[in-house]
Amino acid sequence: MEYPSKLIEDAVNEVAKLPGIGKKTALRLVLHLIKENENRTITLTDSLNTLRSNIKFCKTCHNISDDEECIICKSHRRDRTILCVVEDTQDVMAIENTAQFKGVYHVLGGVISPMNGIGPSDLKIDSLVNRISDLNTEVKEIILALSPTMEGDTTSFYINRKLNTYGIKITSIARGVPMGGDLEYADEITLGRSITARTLFS
Amino acid sequence: MEYPSKLIEDAVNEVAKLPGIGKKTALRLVLHLIKENENRTITLTDSLNTLRSNIKFCKTCHNISDDEECIICKSHRRDRTILCVVEDTQDVMAIENTAQFKGVYHVLGGVISPMNGIGPSDLKIDSLVNRISDLNTEVKEIILALSPTMEGDTTSFYINRKLNTYGIKITSIARGVPMGGDLEYADEITLGRSITARTLFS
Repeated sequence: MEYPSKLIEDAVNEVAKLPGIGKKTALRLVLHLIKENENRTITLTDSLNTLRSNIKFCKTCHNISDDEECIICKSHRRDRTILCVVEDTQDVMAIENTAQFKGVYHVLGGVISPMNGIGPSDLKIDSLVNRISDLNTEVKEIILALSPTMEGDTTSFYINRKLNTYGIKITSIARGVPMGGDLEYADEITLGRSITARTLFS
Repeated sequence: MEYPSKLIEDAVNEVAKLPGIGKKTALRLVLHLIKENENRTITLTDSLNTLRSNIKFCKTCHNISDDEECIICKSHRRDRTILCVVEDTQDVMAIENTAQFKGVYHVLGGVISPMNGIGPSDLKIDSLVNRISDLNTEVKEIILALSPTMEGDTTSFYINRKLNTYGIKITSIARGVPMGGDLEYADEITLGRSITARTLFS
């Protein structure tokens, strides 16, 4: 594509580096900013710069936070005996939205993925072990809430092997047919697992 | 949605104001920037700020430009006897991509649209009339290349009425482009044909 201006070209190339944004979408966004008032662009870029330079990670659970410690770890209403291990911030938000969990979290920052060159040392697994091995730990149960993929399973197995010597209950979120789904459209592995891992009806 | 941080919330709200970007996509983009190096965010915001504060509009054709006059108006290879009237920059880029047009442009900056409160005075129509009524004008033909929509047609009729007293040939791009379509999304062959097969307007 030929751009009428070098400035446009530079901006489009930068915006198109964002995930899921192609050149055509980037051009549309950039031309939108040109049409809008200049203050609009300043507000947008300021909010991104402020975010990027001031964002912190909770020293306890490694979730994204405005302060040294995140609002969940700081809260007195959370149950510190249950710890939920997740991949990233989006997963914390998704679980918080269910309003079914009142414990605390541990954010790994990813899953073990040799294909992408991510090993256990790139994740917050040592920090998780430290939290559990701490003599003053209140944790009585660890819920592994990782994605039901090859990488997620590998990571769950690895964490389980690291932690099962501490005599703490380790659970994993239920795998089965999703609510509202149609049985005949469920894939064979999911349906198979949902039968072998059936639960008591009550 | 509850965000783990006020900074995230502010950034997401700003990004989600862009056209076609919802809160969920905005969150994904913002979290991507947090994962990446801080320089990445700085480069992105710098390119947008530089663009927004330095971008100019060509004094002749009103296309987006790095200078007072755009590269097309400056070029000695362009045929100044044919003037193509388009809605916006994306249309200029689309027509340039067909390589079927060697004349110059006039960018209106929109089309007449009473529904959106856009009247003739909000567009560069007076400036077009000045270009044509200029005694030194070289223009021998005006091609109306507006979107084949109600608004585009209305604008074409309006411009034709304003210009048909100057004894200049006024043509319109051939209706090879499907009705209700948007110029920037037409494929190059259709768009190219529509220029070579232009018909007399009226």
